[in-house]
Amino acid sequence: MKHTYAVIMAGGGGTRLWPISRKKHPKHILPLLGENTLFQSTLARLDGLVSAERILVVTTADQAEQLKAQAPHIPAGNFLLEPQPRGTASVVGLAAAVLAQRDPQAVMLVLPSDHFIRNRDLFHLVMRVAVQVACKGFLVTLGIKPTFPSTGYGYIQQGNSLEDKFDYPVYRVLRFTEKPDEAKARQMLAGGDHSWNSGMFVWRADRILAEISRLLPDLAAALEKIVAAWGAPEQEAVFGSAWLNLQTVTIDYGVMERAGNVAVLPAGGLEWSDVGSWDSLFDVLLADDGGNVVVNSEFIPLETHDTLVYSSKKKLIVTIGVDDLIVIDSGDALLVCHRDQAQQVRQAIEILKKKKKESYL
Amino acid sequence: MKHTYAVIMAGGGGTRLWPISRKKHPKHILPLLGENTLFQSTLARLDGLVSAERILVVTTADQAEQLKAQAPHIPAGNFLLEPQPRGTASVVGLAAAVLAQRDPQAVMLVLPSDHFIRNRDLFHLVMRVAVQVACKGFLVTLGIKPTFPSTGYGYIQQGNSLEDKFDYPVYRVLRFTEKPDEAKARQMLAGGDHSWNSGMFVWRADRILAEISRLLPDLAAALEKIVAAWGAPEQEAVFGSAWLNLQTVTIDYGVMERAGNVAVLPAGGLEWSDVGSWDSLFDVLLADDGGNVVVNSEFIPLETHDTLVYSSKKKLIVTIGVDDLIVIDSGDALLVCHRDQAQQVRQAIEILKKKKKESYL
Repeated sequence: MKHTYAVIMAGGGGTRLWPISRKKHPKHILPLLGENTLFQSTLARLDGLVSAERILVVTTADQAEQLKAQAPHIPAGNFLLEPQPRGTASVVGLAAAVLAQRDPQAVMLVLPSDHFIRNRDLFHLVMRVAVQVACKGFLVTLGIKPTFPSTGYGYIQQGNSLEDKFDYPVYRVLRFTEKPDEAKARQMLAGGDHSWNSGMFVWRADRILAEISRLLPDLAAALEKIVAAWGAPEQEAVFGSAWLNLQTVTIDYGVMERAGNVAVLPAGGLEWSDVGSWDSLFDVLLADDGGNVVVNSEFIPLETHDTLVYSSKKKLIVTIGVDDLIVIDSGDALLVCHRDQAQQVRQAIEILKKKKKESYL
Repeated sequence: MKHTYAVIMAGGGGTRLWPISRKKHPKHILPLLGENTLFQSTLARLDGLVSAERILVVTTADQAEQLKAQAPHIPAGNFLLEPQPRGTASVVGLAAAVLAQRDPQAVMLVLPSDHFIRNRDLFHLVMRVAVQVACKGFLVTLGIKPTFPSTGYGYIQQGNSLEDKFDYPVYRVLRFTEKPDEAKARQMLAGGDHSWNSGMFVWRADRILAEISRLLPDLAAALEKIVAAWGAPEQEAVFGSAWLNLQTVTIDYGVMERAGNVAVLPAGGLEWSDVGSWDSLFDVLLADDGGNVVVNSEFIPLETHDTLVYSSKKKLIVTIGVDDLIVIDSGDALLVCHRDQAQQVRQAIEILKKKKKESYL
């Protein structure tokens, strides 16, 4: 694994974890589940897989100081600051260009900073296999075996197994499908040949740069200029102006859906969540016999089942005669939400925006 | 109405309004519904009916200073402090004895300090009629026309109308029934001749003292000693020792259930609540089109119906996809309770007592 690097994408927001996650305190920066922030847990998950000096963090200027403070073991020069957010394709391209310059044989693990994975051993196994597959020239996506017909994830359809034998099943990718409606989701779940798109990828830096050259030539041209000026006095100016003119595009849409030689590892048992909404977090937390989960609170559940209670500060929460609830207290705001409707938090945020309630955003 | 006095019973607790109501801050002392406390609203409701110097407040030493501060227009000498709580029979007896000494023709309105009544005009009418009935020697109870088969109230069965004509229907009382089970409650509701026992009474001081002499001779003897020493240097000592030896008994059980010449005014339309629990308060608050009630909060209800949200400080509360909920935030504690189970709050308090969580009690 001597040419293996990790690229942590840490620029996002995450409005569906409101009221805990806010514009100025996005979820990966928060100690959402215990002492560590999701960002810190993402780094800790790499212990034994990638050393600190080989971890790049791509983020924005307004988050950089907080992230550096949370990860003092990562060299400051490994933090790449986007002048403006321009989508995951640009993030991946920038990191690939910087890494290819540093190590022409670099293999990149591309990892969101805000996912939850309980089974770290399996994560390591899957990543080691993914690196082996990537070394053969594949663009590797980490799939998640679906457990219900989610309409919140993209799906990946697998084709034949790769000819080479690996320590974990690997398939060629037939097709990416964006977030489906429920009928379509049921159909894909029933087929048994679809995974959720986790947003985690592994590839050689030179391979992804070649695909970017082919599929996103404007980005490739910008990256060429940026790399030429990298480390020189004009670096910031060149970076800033090149970035300003980029279109915002995701790596999935911009590259993966149209690239050749894409492989998927359909991982089951990772106990993974993208922590995209309260219900997805709820799904992976350990519940008591009544199906209840408590985070950070003193909890007295009476005739209560399948309910998550969460408070940002220690608080006593008593629930009586309720089922399937999500109760989130941030101090200044309180969310009480049916478990099946956690996606609707976005609607509440739209209302707050319209009412110009900045302090709650 | 020149011999009419009001006696406000202001010594109670009210644990079912937890987490807002606490041992040290019982509900009548709190600004539960706006700027005024329930105690202040009880006094304000007497404007035009009983003047301030004719209002007695019976309370305990630990609540007296707060109550005096909330009612500076009531003469300090009108606050009677129980050495220890000894039930409503003792409260009524004490007030009656003090009033009878001051005015042998005194008629007392006996009123809890923590009830909610929206229809003040009707309250005045009913009280004026009750005074007329009391002047004729009746012990008058104010009944409430039941609207559902509550198991949380005592019931009063009415018999014949009184022969005299009054401006409001008045009946002789046939029977008092303690809090019934649901089958019994349904039966009484269907019969149409039962009222809820509101705990509000009107009678001549001499009449209730005569009944106390007959039915509670120990209390009568204690009152005699206390009145003899009233205003003298030994008042406190006599009061304290006489009170210490009293049994705790309610006026309903100790007197009303066994007295003769008891009348009831079955009031409908008072929009009354004893504020005994969150659901009883919920019943009388004004709801929006979705059946939702908000107190003291900024509220965004999404797909939410028949839900009460309440916070002690201004707080943003968002609910999504919930019905029939009661959500109460006191700052340090949060209650989320199905509307039909609000009585169970007592069980939560028992658990807190067992866990010795004094700060929450």
